[in-house]
Order: sequence, then structure tokens, then C-alpha cells
Amino acid sequence: MGREELINVRLSDEGDAVVVLDQTLLPNETKFLKLSEAEELHEAIFSLRVRGAPAIGIFAAFSLYVLARKSASKGFDDFYADVLKLGAYLDTARPTAVNLSTQLRRMEGFVGGLVGTPVPQVLDAMRGEAVRIYNEDVEMCRAISEYGLTLIRDGFGIMTICNAGPIATSRYGTSLGPILMGHERGMDLRIYTCETRPLLQGARLTAFELDRAGADCTLICDSMASIVMKEGKIDAVFSGCDRVAMNGDTANKIGTSGLAILAKHYGVPLYVFCPSSTIDTNCMSGDEIEIELRPPGEIKELFFKTPVAPAGVKCYNPAFDVTDNSLITAIITEKGICRAPYTQSLAQFGK
Amino acid sequence: MGREELINVRLSDEGDAVVVLDQTLLPNETKFLKLSEAEELHEAIFSLRVRGAPAIGIFAAFSLYVLARKSASKGFDDFYADVLKLGAYLDTARPTAVNLSTQLRRMEGFVGGLVGTPVPQVLDAMRGEAVRIYNEDVEMCRAISEYGLTLIRDGFGIMTICNAGPIATSRYGTSLGPILMGHERGMDLRIYTCETRPLLQGARLTAFELDRAGADCTLICDSMASIVMKEGKIDAVFSGCDRVAMNGDTANKIGTSGLAILAKHYGVPLYVFCPSSTIDTNCMSGDEIEIELRPPGEIKELFFKTPVAPAGVKCYNPAFDVTDNSLITAIITEKGICRAPYTQSLAQFGK
Repeated sequence: MGREELINVRLSDEGDAVVVLDQTLLPNETKFLKLSEAEELHEAIFSLRVRGAPAIGIFAAFSLYVLARKSASKGFDDFYADVLKLGAYLDTARPTAVNLSTQLRRMEGFVGGLVGTPVPQVLDAMRGEAVRIYNEDVEMCRAISEYGLTLIRDGFGIMTICNAGPIATSRYGTSLGPILMGHERGMDLRIYTCETRPLLQGARLTAFELDRAGADCTLICDSMASIVMKEGKIDAVFSGCDRVAMNGDTANKIGTSGLAILAKHYGVPLYVFCPSSTIDTNCMSGDEIEIELRPPGEIKELFFKTPVAPAGVKCYNPAFDVTDNSLITAIITEKGICRAPYTQSLAQFGK
Repeated sequence: MGREELINVRLSDEGDAVVVLDQTLLPNETKFLKLSEAEELHEAIFSLRVRGAPAIGIFAAFSLYVLARKSASKGFDDFYADVLKLGAYLDTARPTAVNLSTQLRRMEGFVGGLVGTPVPQVLDAMRGEAVRIYNEDVEMCRAISEYGLTLIRDGFGIMTICNAGPIATSRYGTSLGPILMGHERGMDLRIYTCETRPLLQGARLTAFELDRAGADCTLICDSMASIVMKEGKIDAVFSGCDRVAMNGDTANKIGTSGLAILAKHYGVPLYVFCPSSTIDTNCMSGDEIEIELRPPGEIKELFFKTPVAPAGVKCYNPAFDVTDNSLITAIITEKGICRAPYTQSLAQFGK
């Protein structure tokens, strides 16, 4: 496999479909899907073919445009009602990441602001707004990466969970951004990648991205984080994030709160990376964040193939957990670095 | 599958082979192997066909008898030299659990005490000693279970890691013993079983044993321990143990030290269960315990079948970690319950 850049979410040249890298097939297969039906766009989000909060937001914006093009409504009002209905439908695909609803609401609000405009012109403007969301994400990732680089030094050992790299965003990534940018600039970084059960985004995606980049990556099981920290191999834990409450509590991939507790125990800083759009100004604390529960098969069968548990056994499969603000050293956004007290620092950066 | 008891390690009726449940095939297949060659007995330990510190000790004792029967030596001295050589070979199969070497040394010392005895009589005595090791383990498990039951109450939620149930021992198990015994006696216990990557002994074995027993078992990924504790579902964490240092540091399945730190954070007691033979009087602290490193394939390929990471990526795969004595609420042996200061309490019970 070459080192050419993977553009994981884009509009087809004709604008009639979203072209998306099917992340469920990585690292064994690099396959792009061309999707244009509401059900298959919804399924791509739910089934994690596209994943990573920023990438989901971009995908949803493109999806809404692709679906709106197929609206039979002639007048603005009917068309706008269609857009709202489509947006509400896409929004049900996953509950925890704020970016999905944020970008859908942005697109809907944008359309709402064009009241009375002929539908073809609204569609052109929607396409422009979706591309803007994409381009803003590229700049956001670049800025986060630069801020993140100020927190690390040559020789650092960094532990990662899940995947917040280029394929989880537009380019660069959020928590993986400083690592990849630092590696490009010749820094010597040792990355310990937690595999991230049940769906192994760390093994399949982060290790894939670091391997492509030629970075020094060591894969571990999630349960090995404690021994690796104890052995002094880790100078910082880097996590992405799906929703930030105004008190600094963050909803992240399941297991992040455990890593945060270990990091505190061993005196290792935990840095959480996210676009400022992830800060949910309507959410005062982590207690208000809905945690998505996913199907038992993700645990009981390895990728729905090999049974690894008795058929009858119950499973509890939360996709996220909430990390208490007291465990977070800093939250890094494209606008700057937030530290405790988060109620003040986040208020500057949240929209 | 019926509820009849599984005798996971025993001597064949003819005494010429060890009959052992192949735990690598659970929960999908219940298959017994009949092994009599040194290489296959060694492989069964290394490849975890037989696993669990007490079960490995029993298996090693039976194995040494089976192999000694095949010795061509006529006189005691030559025969004893053969026994020592066979014992040293079996001992190389796994480094961390003390029981493997303890039971081999016991068998060797037993033979050494019969100096000058005709070889056929020595063999008969060896068989008796191996059966004694088995029977002592049954009594040990029963006693540990009774002590463990004094630590829990009706309605408890208990988190488990790895497997220290009947198939890891002779019967009952160590950390699973109080749970199964409590369930038999009608206690209402909710068990949260960590799947225990990379080899999924929690999902494949503990969930299998709890399911067979009709206990209330919920399977989780290791990374979900934090959220489950945070939600108040856990009243105690139960772990087995492979080696106890005299200061109370314990070597357990990889991930136990992380669970211990989480348990302390959330105010949940951690109980470690083991036979007193697991207390290593030659080991002053956990720093002296050798941690077994296992092959990358256990992480990178799910049961050596499906690749889930780039082929080139490095892996770090320690099979155990050391839990600091300050994180352990109590260590439960067949002789009683040890609490801090462990230097004193363990000295009573270690041999």
C-alpha cells in the first residue's frame, strides 16, 4: 500500500453520492463505497463504516445535500420541510457524538436562512456549505495539531485509544494530528496504541494510519495500559472526544475513563483533543450525556464471525464512557488549550 | 450441554496418559485430549490447553508420572536423574505461575525421598502423590470458597477477570468458587465478567462456567470495567492469582492491576483468591516476578485467524501484571484471609 493520502469522505464528482472509505474492512481492504440512498447513508453511520465524530459530521452534511437533491418538492417551504425530515432521520443513526447533530443543524439552519430562494439555488448553496464544513475541518485539525505539538517533546511515549486520526476527520486527525505532524517534522515519538475493544479501532485504524506514516507504533490490548504506564513508557495519554460538557466532563470511546484513572494514578497527563464544535453548550455535566448501547454481538462474536462466548450469556456494551473533568490535564481545540477550571476556559471556546 | 461436572485434568484409567479438557476450544467444543509424550504435554501448558495455576500444577504432577513410567532406567539413581530432567523440561513451559514449579519440585522431592526404592514401587508412589495433589486441590478450593463467602452478601455485584473457576483448578475454583458455591446455596449474585483480552478466558471460560451453572452473568469488554463500577453495579472485584510475593504484591492475569486501580478509585474492594502454595516465600516483592511475554499473534490475529492489525505493526503482549499490595483489600487462601500488613499475614500461611 502506498503512502498517498486517503480522502475518506467526499462528494462524488457528479454530486449525486457520498464516496466513503469503508472503515469496517480496514486494515485488510481499502474499499470505497458510493452511497446515495437515505437508508444506506444512515446504515453507514450506524455500522461505523464512517466513524470519528468530525468525519461523521462531514459525512452527514454531504449526505443531507445528496438526499435533498432527490427531493421532488418545487417550492422552498416544501423543500425545507423535506430537509428537516431527512436531517432528523440521519440524526438518529448515533446518539453520543455531538458533531452529527451539530452539522445537520448547521445545514438545516443554513437552508432556513435562504427562505424563498429557488430550490436549485438552495441546492447549490447547500453543496457549498457542506464543502465549507469539510474545509473548516481541515483547518481545525491543522490548528489542533499545532497546539498539541506544544505539549510534547522529542522522545515522548504516547498512549492512544480508539482512532482520532485522518480517517476520523478530514485530514491529520485530532488526537493523532500532533503525532503525525510531529513525526513528519522528524520528532522521535513512540506510540502505544490501545486496540480498543470491542471494535478494535485502535488495532485496525490507528495502527493502520501510524504504520502507513512509518511512525513507531506498538499495539497493546486495552488491559495492558496499566503495566505499560507502570514501566515508565508513557509520557502522555492522547484521546479524542465525542462530546464535552461545560464543566469539562468528556464523553469518549469506552475505556477512556479507565485510562484517565490509570494515568492519574501513575502521574501521566491526559490530553483530550477535539474541535470546539464538540463543546456542547447545552450540556452542563457528563451526567447529562446519553451513552449509546450497542449490540451484544460486537462482544460475543469477533466481528460477527467466531463465537467467543456462550450463546446465552448477557452482554453490556456501552460504546462510550464519561471521563470526569478532574482527570483531564487539558482539552485541546483549534482555538486553543483549555485547562481547569473548565467552566471558565470552555466558555471562551464553545459556540 | 448438561450440567454434569467436567473433570478437566485426570489420569487415564491405564495411567499411561493425562486426559485433559482442551480449553482453547471452549465454549464452542468440549473436547478431551489424551496426552503421553513430553512434547505434547509441554505444548498443552504453553498453548493454554490446560491453564489456571492450580490446574497446571495438577497437570504437571500427572505429566511427570506419565513420563517417568516411560523411563528405561532400572536403578533408582538413573531413574531419579530422568525425573529431574523431565521436571526441568516441563517447568520451562510457562514462567509466571509458581504452581507449575511448586508441584514439579514437590514430585521430585517426593521421589528423592524414596532413594534406593525399586523403580516400580517409586512409580506407584508417584501416582499416589499426584492424586494427593489433586485431592488436596479439591479441599483447598472448598476452603477458599467458604472463606470467600464470608466477604459477600445477597444482592452483590461481583466483577471477575480471566478464569479461576473449576476448569482452572480441580473443582469449584478459587475466585469463582465463592460465586458458584453462593449460587448453589441460593444467593442472588450478579456477575460482571471481563472478557480478558487477548485470549478471552473471561468470555470463553468464566462465562461458560457461570452459564452452565445458571448464574446471572453479564459479559463486558475489559475497557468497560470503569463505567460499570461508576454506575454502582459492583460491590467487589474477585481475581485469581498466579504468584504472591511476601509483601502482598500479586502477579495476576494482565489487566488485574488496572482493575485494582479502578476499584480503589471507585471505592470497591479487591479480593485476590489463591491457594497458599501460590505464596512464594522466595519472592520479597512484585519487582522480582518475571512477567511472561507471549507472541504478537495473540493480539494481531483473533485466535490466529482473522488479521485485525497491519501485518508490520509491533505488539507488546505481557500475559500478567503485578498488582501492588496497597490496592488489595484481602488475599484469600484455604488457610484463611490475609489483610495488610501482608508481610505479617502472609508469613503465617506461606510454606
